[in-house]
Amino acid sequence: MKLAEQVIAGDRLALARMLSLVENDTPQGRSELDELFPHTGRAHLVGITGAPGTGKSSLVNQLAYAFRHPIDGSSPLRVAVIAVDPSSPFSGGALLGDRVRMRDLVGDPGVFIRSMASRGALGGLARNTAAVAQVFDAAGFEIILIETVGAGQGEVDIARLAHTTIVVEAPGLGDDIQAIKAGILEIADILVINKADRPGVEQTERALRAMLELAKPERIVMHHGRLAVLSYQEEENEAARVWKPFIMKTIALRGEGVQELAQAVREHGEHLRRNGEWQRRELERLDAELQGLVQAELVARWRERVPEETYQSILQQVIKRTISPYQAVVKLLEK
Amino acid sequence: MKLAEQVIAGDRLALARMLSLVENDTPQGRSELDELFPHTGRAHLVGITGAPGTGKSSLVNQLAYAFRHPIDGSSPLRVAVIAVDPSSPFSGGALLGDRVRMRDLVGDPGVFIRSMASRGALGGLARNTAAVAQVFDAAGFEIILIETVGAGQGEVDIARLAHTTIVVEAPGLGDDIQAIKAGILEIADILVINKADRPGVEQTERALRAMLELAKPERIVMHHGRLAVLSYQEEENEAARVWKPFIMKTIALRGEGVQELAQAVREHGEHLRRNGEWQRRELERLDAELQGLVQAELVARWRERVPEETYQSILQQVIKRTISPYQAVVKLLEK
Repeated sequence: MKLAEQVIAGDRLALARMLSLVENDTPQGRSELDELFPHTGRAHLVGITGAPGTGKSSLVNQLAYAFRHPIDGSSPLRVAVIAVDPSSPFSGGALLGDRVRMRDLVGDPGVFIRSMASRGALGGLARNTAAVAQVFDAAGFEIILIETVGAGQGEVDIARLAHTTIVVEAPGLGDDIQAIKAGILEIADILVINKADRPGVEQTERALRAMLELAKPERIVMHHGRLAVLSYQEEENEAARVWKPFIMKTIALRGEGVQELAQAVREHGEHLRRNGEWQRRELERLDAELQGLVQAELVARWRERVPEETYQSILQQVIKRTISPYQAVVKLLEK
Repeated sequence: MKLAEQVIAGDRLALARMLSLVENDTPQGRSELDELFPHTGRAHLVGITGAPGTGKSSLVNQLAYAFRHPIDGSSPLRVAVIAVDPSSPFSGGALLGDRVRMRDLVGDPGVFIRSMASRGALGGLARNTAAVAQVFDAAGFEIILIETVGAGQGEVDIARLAHTTIVVEAPGLGDDIQAIKAGILEIADILVINKADRPGVEQTERALRAMLELAKPERIVMHHGRLAVLSYQEEENEAARVWKPFIMKTIALRGEGVQELAQAVREHGEHLRRNGEWQRRELERLDAELQGLVQAELVARWRERVPEETYQSILQQVIKRTISPYQAVVKLLEK
């Protein structure tokens, strides 16, 4: 049986091997992924993001557990966790300390956890994460939790990858953290204040609420990857399909509020499916992925065409200020 | 007189206009930049980075003041500040609250401050920042302070752009912030603990010191943009030109420790010039810039070749799972 077929049949060893092939972007990985791709499109991708110190990893672990053991009578879902760790861009080493807390999930065949180290460019990481998510999707995992550290562009890339984006905050992480929140809030479908037993929780909630008001998500929609402001007519038609981000409180270490969060994630998925938003996010996601792949391939092909010594000699002319970088580009693309 | 000549002659209005042209990446901006480029290569680029809440912006303002008013008998230097704000990736709006604290610098012709909003991709932002820095360089600014928020890839891009990288920390910003520090520490030439009058400063210093030991920078060097571990023979030759990152404490709001920091930055610049490291960083910087420009141009030319409807129809096949993303790339590049 081919590797792709074994993955679809639910073989965990085949899955692990496939993930490695795909994560390292090998030619075999690419062709196996071609086989898997027709079987994708069913999983619910959930991005979980937030600054260090918010207890995000513990929350992800608890959330996985909640999807496996729902208390509201719904069926348990198969859960994959992709932990993306861009914390060490040079060393490429993922810090897996938090993963040891996952003993409740160990041995559960309905759970698969994969830690990805950041290798090189952020664009490459986003591409690899998309591919890894596709493997889990084809293997029948219904919920894929994608956890990332960091702030800024990384979050935007997740938002493009995920159907549902959870932004995690915690009380007492510094006062002018607001600067960064403004951007992150715009991509949040659900805002979580974790460590909600800590002092300062009311203050954090007030601040988040104020920013949510400011963001006025009901007048702004994504359109071809850009934000668009709606006219008042469009606004009325839009109102039915707009999801208003809200705030939930959790104490991940004690599991408090986590079942409710899992429920909210499921509701968001249903909301997206009900009004066509699921398809729209799917389109934007695959569009972004396709553009990224084209870009990577264009660069790879160009590198094959232009000999290294040609590149180096033109770079030397730039360093000597004989030609400008733009003039160098023109020369390099003439070749 | 041409715009580029006016900029070189020190005309502030021409400078402001040039910055806008270059920041928006207009064709005129590109050709003016070609004119300016031979006049670049003298400025000392200093990257200042750190998480929100570290008081980084106040420190940048104080540092600019310290370079303008040195107390060690050295001459005042002309200072440009580039505030890169990727906090709001969608709205593109820069939060300039901190800039109002800069009243000490207002009216000083030896200072120029430019805030850049993040527009679209992070790669694009890095390219624009490089171009803006070149304009300031050609205009005769001797110190260019580049301030960024965020964590992860953004910092690495600054390290490539800057001769000197300052990483700013502050006491009490959460406990597992360490995860992110590991990566950032590797790019730091100088580590600053700001808000050093706050409780917990000894703890922060101990943690940073422990991580510096772990990083063992004396055995690891940058080689063609990658980290390389030295053999023991190489190590001896290397020892003379290795800069050991160290920790400084500041209280930016009261200006404490800032003159010393400015001095340390100047010393780092002299160190780089003394042992050829300046040229090496210059090479890596222009190499990264050139590669980024080539990539952007390849994509732009490809977009011109492939009609939008062709792209959309292939994307639709991917969405219907008729073909995989990789198969789509092959089709798109055949055109």
